[in-house]
Amino acid sequence: MIGYPNKKKIQPPVSDPAISKARRGMSLEDDLNKTNSYYLDVDRAVIFKKPTPIQVVEVSYPARNKAKITEAYYRQASTTDYNGVYRGLPIDFEAKETVNKTSFSLAKLHKHQLVHLVNVYRHGAIAFLLIRFSSLDETYLIMIESLIRFLKNHDRQSIPYDWIKNEGIFIPYSLTPPVDYLTALDKILTEGVKRNEEKK
Amino acid sequence: MIGYPNKKKIQPPVSDPAISKARRGMSLEDDLNKTNSYYLDVDRAVIFKKPTPIQVVEVSYPARNKAKITEAYYRQASTTDYNGVYRGLPIDFEAKETVNKTSFSLAKLHKHQLVHLVNVYRHGAIAFLLIRFSSLDETYLIMIESLIRFLKNHDRQSIPYDWIKNEGIFIPYSLTPPVDYLTALDKILTEGVKRNEEKK
Repeated sequence: MIGYPNKKKIQPPVSDPAISKARRGMSLEDDLNKTNSYYLDVDRAVIFKKPTPIQVVEVSYPARNKAKITEAYYRQASTTDYNGVYRGLPIDFEAKETVNKTSFSLAKLHKHQLVHLVNVYRHGAIAFLLIRFSSLDETYLIMIESLIRFLKNHDRQSIPYDWIKNEGIFIPYSLTPPVDYLTALDKILTEGVKRNEEKK
Repeated sequence: MIGYPNKKKIQPPVSDPAISKARRGMSLEDDLNKTNSYYLDVDRAVIFKKPTPIQVVEVSYPARNKAKITEAYYRQASTTDYNGVYRGLPIDFEAKETVNKTSFSLAKLHKHQLVHLVNVYRHGAIAFLLIRFSSLDETYLIMIESLIRFLKNHDRQSIPYDWIKNEGIFIPYSLTPPVDYLTALDKILTEGVKRNEEKK
């Protein structure tokens, strides 16, 4: 590996057709639920999806001990969907899927989600976005720092696929866990540490 | 203050009857919502209450753009109610109220909540319990480390009020924010830093 240029990008591995077939129809949310539950089982991290906020209007009690909600409405979430603790650090992220093959529409990222990611990042959390191009079967991790830079420098309604491929970290599919984003994150955390050491 | 014994405990201030009257009927949850929203406004921390998990069974669409949930059930939460980021650290806690004046029943703290607090603590989060004795109008912060010690050394179904008063940090009521638990926490964090420095 001596002398190998540092700029080498991690290439998506050739998809295993057997794996691709088996997981067809699995949403990013399903994959993340399995992944977080795996991380918890092997005691690697404690990360959970937050429940969907629901405004309950009416509850009836048809059976003993079991309240039945008979009128309720979905509410807008104030935060991102996922957060937790990893290596002593606060983790916070949002996960999005798109069928588009050439770009990710920024309309999919709600303003309050972006504001929340920036807020937790400023307070010291590791904040990022997971984007899956479901037609391509590719998932990327975009650090909030990169996303902020993109938004500052581009007046666009969408992020091009090529930018995501270059700036994001590709997360190869594995069976356990399906979306191993913490391993992708480890690369960034380790590079960050290296950069800080080089500065010394 | 020179020579003052180190063991001095912070005494609950005498309640202001005007404040007491004004806040009567405010639940700990209401107070915490206001407090967290205040912390967010002044940019001190990013801490949110998680939504109550609800299992949606049936949804109808009586009006355009507004889904109406017509059958749903409350589910058991897998985590605590509150978490977020403060001073670069993950924060995680559960809040409980009791009308009992002499003890806090451990039946109120569900097993999965305790397990979750221990898990996030082991992974580096600041984890604690807020207990309000509503009849006494007193709120205490109990670090998970103290709680674990209590559970190891006592085979009891409840925690005596006196133990909580001695081991916990009293949180005096203020108007903004109503439950200033981060200031209480600062004392512990600073003492922790002092202890580590003394060890050097």
